[in-house]
Amino acid sequence: MGNTFGRIFRLTSFGESHGRSVGGIVDGVPPGITIDISKIQRDLDRRRPGQSSITTSRKELDQVVLLSGIFEQKTTGMPIGFLVENRNHKSEDYDHIKDIYRPSHADFTYDKKYGHRDYRGGGRSSARETISRVIGGSIAKQFLNDISISAYVSSVGSISLDKPYYEYNLSEAENSIVRCPDLDKSKEMISLIEEVKKSGDTIGGVVSCVIKNVPIGLGEPVFDKLHAVLGKAMLSINAVKGFEYGSGFEGTKMLGSKHNDLFVKGGGTKTNFSGGIQGGISNGEDIYFRVAFKPVATIMQDQISTDKNNENINIVGRGRHDPCVVPRAVPIVESMAAMVIADYILLNAMNILN
Amino acid sequence: MGNTFGRIFRLTSFGESHGRSVGGIVDGVPPGITIDISKIQRDLDRRRPGQSSITTSRKELDQVVLLSGIFEQKTTGMPIGFLVENRNHKSEDYDHIKDIYRPSHADFTYDKKYGHRDYRGGGRSSARETISRVIGGSIAKQFLNDISISAYVSSVGSISLDKPYYEYNLSEAENSIVRCPDLDKSKEMISLIEEVKKSGDTIGGVVSCVIKNVPIGLGEPVFDKLHAVLGKAMLSINAVKGFEYGSGFEGTKMLGSKHNDLFVKGGGTKTNFSGGIQGGISNGEDIYFRVAFKPVATIMQDQISTDKNNENINIVGRGRHDPCVVPRAVPIVESMAAMVIADYILLNAMNILN
Amino acid sequence: MGNTFGRIFRLTSFGESHGRSVGGIVDGVPPGITIDISKIQRDLDRRRPGQSSITTSRKELDQVVLLSGIFEQKTTGMPIGFLVENRNHKSEDYDHIKDIYRPSHADFTYDKKYGHRDYRGGGRSSARETISRVIGGSIAKQFLNDISISAYVSSVGSISLDKPYYEYNLSEAENSIVRCPDLDKSKEMISLIEEVKKSGDTIGGVVSCVIKNVPIGLGEPVFDKLHAVLGKAMLSINAVKGFEYGSGFEGTKMLGSKHNDLFVKGGGTKTNFSGGIQGGISNGEDIYFRVAFKPVATIMQDQISTDKNNENINIVGRGRHDPCVVPRAVPIVESMAAMVIADYILLNAMNILN
Amino acid sequence: MGNTFGRIFRLTSFGESHGRSVGGIVDGVPPGITIDISKIQRDLDRRRPGQSSITTSRKELDQVVLLSGIFEQKTTGMPIGFLVENRNHKSEDYDHIKDIYRPSHADFTYDKKYGHRDYRGGGRSSARETISRVIGGSIAKQFLNDISISAYVSSVGSISLDKPYYEYNLSEAENSIVRCPDLDKSKEMISLIEEVKKSGDTIGGVVSCVIKNVPIGLGEPVFDKLHAVLGKAMLSINAVKGFEYGSGFEGTKMLGSKHNDLFVKGGGTKTNFSGGIQGGISNGEDIYFRVAFKPVATIMQDQISTDKNNENINIVGRGRHDPCVVPRAVPIVESMAAMVIADYILLNAMNILN
Repeated sequence: MGNTFGRIFRLTSFGESHGRSVGGIVDGVPPGITIDISKIQRDLDRRRPGQSSITTSRKELDQVVLLSGIFEQKTTGMPIGFLVENRNHKSEDYDHIKDIYRPSHADFTYDKKYGHRDYRGGGRSSARETISRVIGGSIAKQFLNDISISAYVSSVGSISLDKPYYEYNLSEAENSIVRCPDLDKSKEMISLIEEVKKSGDTIGGVVSCVIKNVPIGLGEPVFDKLHAVLGKAMLSINAVKGFEYGSGFEGTKMLGSKHNDLFVKGGGTKTNFSGGIQGGISNGEDIYFRVAFKPVATIMQDQISTDKNNENINIVGRGRHDPCVVPRAVPIVESMAAMVIADYILLNAMNILN
Repeated sequence: MGNTFGRIFRLTSFGESHGRSVGGIVDGVPPGITIDISKIQRDLDRRRPGQSSITTSRKELDQVVLLSGIFEQKTTGMPIGFLVENRNHKSEDYDHIKDIYRPSHADFTYDKKYGHRDYRGGGRSSARETISRVIGGSIAKQFLNDISISAYVSSVGSISLDKPYYEYNLSEAENSIVRCPDLDKSKEMISLIEEVKKSGDTIGGVVSCVIKNVPIGLGEPVFDKLHAVLGKAMLSINAVKGFEYGSGFEGTKMLGSKHNDLFVKGGGTKTNFSGGIQGGISNGEDIYFRVAFKPVATIMQDQISTDKNNENINIVGRGRHDPCVVPRAVPIVESMAAMVIADYILLNAMNILN
Repeated sequence: MGNTFGRIFRLTSFGESHGRSVGGIVDGVPPGITIDISKIQRDLDRRRPGQSSITTSRKELDQVVLLSGIFEQKTTGMPIGFLVENRNHKSEDYDHIKDIYRPSHADFTYDKKYGHRDYRGGGRSSARETISRVIGGSIAKQFLNDISISAYVSSVGSISLDKPYYEYNLSEAENSIVRCPDLDKSKEMISLIEEVKKSGDTIGGVVSCVIKNVPIGLGEPVFDKLHAVLGKAMLSINAVKGFEYGSGFEGTKMLGSKHNDLFVKGGGTKTNFSGGIQGGISNGEDIYFRVAFKPVATIMQDQISTDKNNENINIVGRGRHDPCVVPRAVPIVESMAAMVIADYILLNAMNILN
Repeated sequence: MGNTFGRIFRLTSFGESHGRSVGGIVDGVPPGITIDISKIQRDLDRRRPGQSSITTSRKELDQVVLLSGIFEQKTTGMPIGFLVENRNHKSEDYDHIKDIYRPSHADFTYDKKYGHRDYRGGGRSSARETISRVIGGSIAKQFLNDISISAYVSSVGSISLDKPYYEYNLSEAENSIVRCPDLDKSKEMISLIEEVKKSGDTIGGVVSCVIKNVPIGLGEPVFDKLHAVLGKAMLSINAVKGFEYGSGFEGTKMLGSKHNDLFVKGGGTKTNFSGGIQGGISNGEDIYFRVAFKPVATIMQDQISTDKNNENINIVGRGRHDPCVVPRAVPIVESMAAMVIADYILLNAMNILN
């Protein structure tokens, strides 16, 4: 269970790190949308391992194949099946972890929950699963047209952007391998990651995201508030530990008289501490939020842990992994956001109906 | 839409601030659970307006009536319908906001989305809706037995607890009207709230929550990770701006070698930065998380805003509202957590099956 | 579980035969629909026990109270909570069945499944539950406007209408207490029911239904075909044993060359054996279907059965029950159809979107 | 939408008749189930075109490839992705129907609903989609173990079995190409189909199904009664026009005193007119039901219809199709039943829990 995301625009995914392929089905895409497969591939390339010196060296081409739901380059309203083959898996790298639980991985919990698991490369708990998210999100983006979704790295370790998002040119992020729009900070971040990598260690970071041109009215009251579903989407990404939108945790320290977003003549508000969402429903202003990623659990240092029999064991660092996950997480955050927005646009069609 | 929470243990709610009643239906409760209605009432009393000098003066007895699904004090497996009457609503307090949008409220978005709305007291967007959450959660708790769920106020404005949760006696929280387990901090928080109230203003805060004795194996891979659903549950509460669990946003600054939770002989880990959840699945350790609440939007100060016709207007503070929402939010956070855990226990029954 | 019907237009219901009340919540109703409560009451009156000499003598006023979701006579898009009180329940009538299982009732299966059950009057398995269906359906009808849904009794026992539906004036059905549009057949059916009643027995029958002015395009391919969901809706009504639409079971005997609906210039087909649905999607022609109701299981004759301890026991007929369920089933069939159509209209909004 | 079946045991499918492949994802399969791929292939072979002289001559090997969710021959609890390639599609056979709507097909409704469609071979509305159902059902069967599900052809046109199901040896059905357990009737049916085929025509039929050893307690009250979900499952299969279980439509003619299933000492009932389901919940007796299939719409005779522009047109019979669908429908009916039962067993785990 738990392999389907969305209510109308729905992604169901499958696939393990070392199986034949990963893939999925996107259902609920309206008919008549032109799908440019090269755009999907471009998003996959932004997520791809081995894309730069600061990502894992696992080499995967990650080429998407679309199997259905598209006819003469346009969606038909039918489900879109898709596949990406796994090629460069080295299962033998994982024989040594068959009977042990790596610290802060899913090994222990999967083993206890399911009894029988594919331990190679983390199996289903591998970040390789996010390929399907990127494909789903990239299809969603092609439906969203004018709505722009820009994610970027806003901190790595303690190196953090210090200005509000609207003071950056967010499109600059793609010019940096760390995907930070501030080129000075970017360099600092890259240095930190390289240093961490050298010591066989890893470091966490934050991905921020801004969504512009969102129609007014997306989101549902009470349990399905737009930010609640966005939050769930982000928290479902591997390694995420927190989500905040608008004023976030900092906003808890503010007075209401300062925090309230006064409406201005002509539309919008003065301050947008609400983050574009009020009462769980988009108000047409920019939606912005932050997503916390922990340091990757696989490190190249020895660790003392226990095996299945509760015996102490020394785990030697091996395999190929990212020293910091946030650069590759950027397209994943965007993709989840795109699917959430697409889903709400479709749900919202009902309110327009009457 | 959006008025149902949960997949197996499901709460569907209805009701506006100034309608006849609020209420709901809890479906999916297993049969044979003894339900003590006085426990539900006790939780409602913790949420009730007018319970102390630092909450709103709206007076509601908030007495729950159970209408079905219980026979001879035990659940039958049938849906539990319930009602709480609205009594002390003063709709005339709201006539002046019929055509205006209060800043940082849901007035604008509801009006744009639905066209026709019950503006009295915020209608459906009122926090009065959370009564149903507390009832659902209180029923869930009676199913959960040994699992303890303790929420408490960990900060108000900039006054914040400075020790980890396990250094407090969390049951002390109920001895303080602000529901903070540290009695010194508690006094400071109360002073701050009183001061803020005097100036007609409001202030935000953070509610923390600890869940103990959670069985191993709750949560589903990929999109329905336990913390993702917990996060959605919390973010769906009125006024919430952020959610983090385990090491949270602070964890992004850590090195993997420090952040990794090394298993210890005999069970559990040294550090539990994972917050009791690994790979989206509970590992049996304490689950802990933090929920950010913004300052209440209704203030007793004049505010310049615009009306429906986009004309400037001066909104005079009126009505009865909380200067700080977190003390009353504590049972709501617990309730949402209880429903999430109950839901996953039921879902998890399937894995035990084979 | 199992107390919610629909995906967008959703009814969740609660309530047992001898509890305080039955009721429910309708979610997903678009905003701005004018709701005339007297129309809901009229449909309830058509379902009400004691309405004629051929129905049960249990006397219930079945007065609906709407609790939310409607403001100034119009829907707001918020969930509509509703209640109907149980008044004339005579629980003492049921003490004698506490430990026995009535033949062809749900007593045995509920007891085995849930262990603890409200046996009075059948509890949740009582047809009293259908009150909520009628209210949900009656609200749906007020959204459907031009779409007409006409159910009627087409057979009682072996007395059956012998002409196709379009040769009757279906509105005549309401002029007969058995709700059959052919007044001669109607008399025969009433005589049969009275005779059956006199001997303390019961008899089955068929309700037919015709839906006109359905927009083209309702229904979803593969698993959610319009007739599949209609079928599920009908089969979920107490005592239903079968469902067929269009040519139905008789169509299996036909040759393709006779069964194929040839399109005619100007729209529509010559024969409409498809029953207004092709590939699971409405084609704009009349939708028509038939629903089989078994004879009511409660009879006023002694029956030999077994009790909880598997001992033989003589069950003496008691209580107040219908000799034939179909006259009162007519508004229930209409209601379920109305909710299905409303749900698909809302789902279909998404396809119009692009 | 509409491409997912089930709540816990869930099949999501994709694929068109003339696309690269059809396939799907089965989610919710418990871990630790041994999967024998040759059993899946055997069920596919029973559905395969070209398997006998009375089926379509389209030649497809229909070889299943499992892509995930299985490790060392056992399920891991992760989603099972699968594919079957389309090989023998002759798209050029369909160029002539690009702009016309074949009578009693989905061409008209798909075109009106979606605007843009893959017309080749019926696209998504092709029965080729049922491959995914058979794979899902075959996996479900391997989870169901002792529960036997036997479907068989009980009528073709007016040739019909005349004894109740328990008087046949249902396993004989597989010895006949028409899949009827009565070998004399079988011959008659085959002759009829061959005759119909010769004249370029088609004929309908009925598939019956018996499920034995069903645990007591499957099914949910009110809207999700076991037979309602079974009915929906069957009605979702291409060409199905009706569903009845237990006494079915014939039961409507009976008196309650004859229809009531009296319990017998030692378990079970005398008559099982209930068809193994009471109050929507299985009672442990045999579940049996009948499914009506219309004559296949594609015939080898000329037909007068209209094209997209509402102009009269002569449609010449072409392509490769079945003269009668029921022999190949048998494994599909079984598969849908298997998935429904698997789903309810998993849902029912919750009631066992307490």
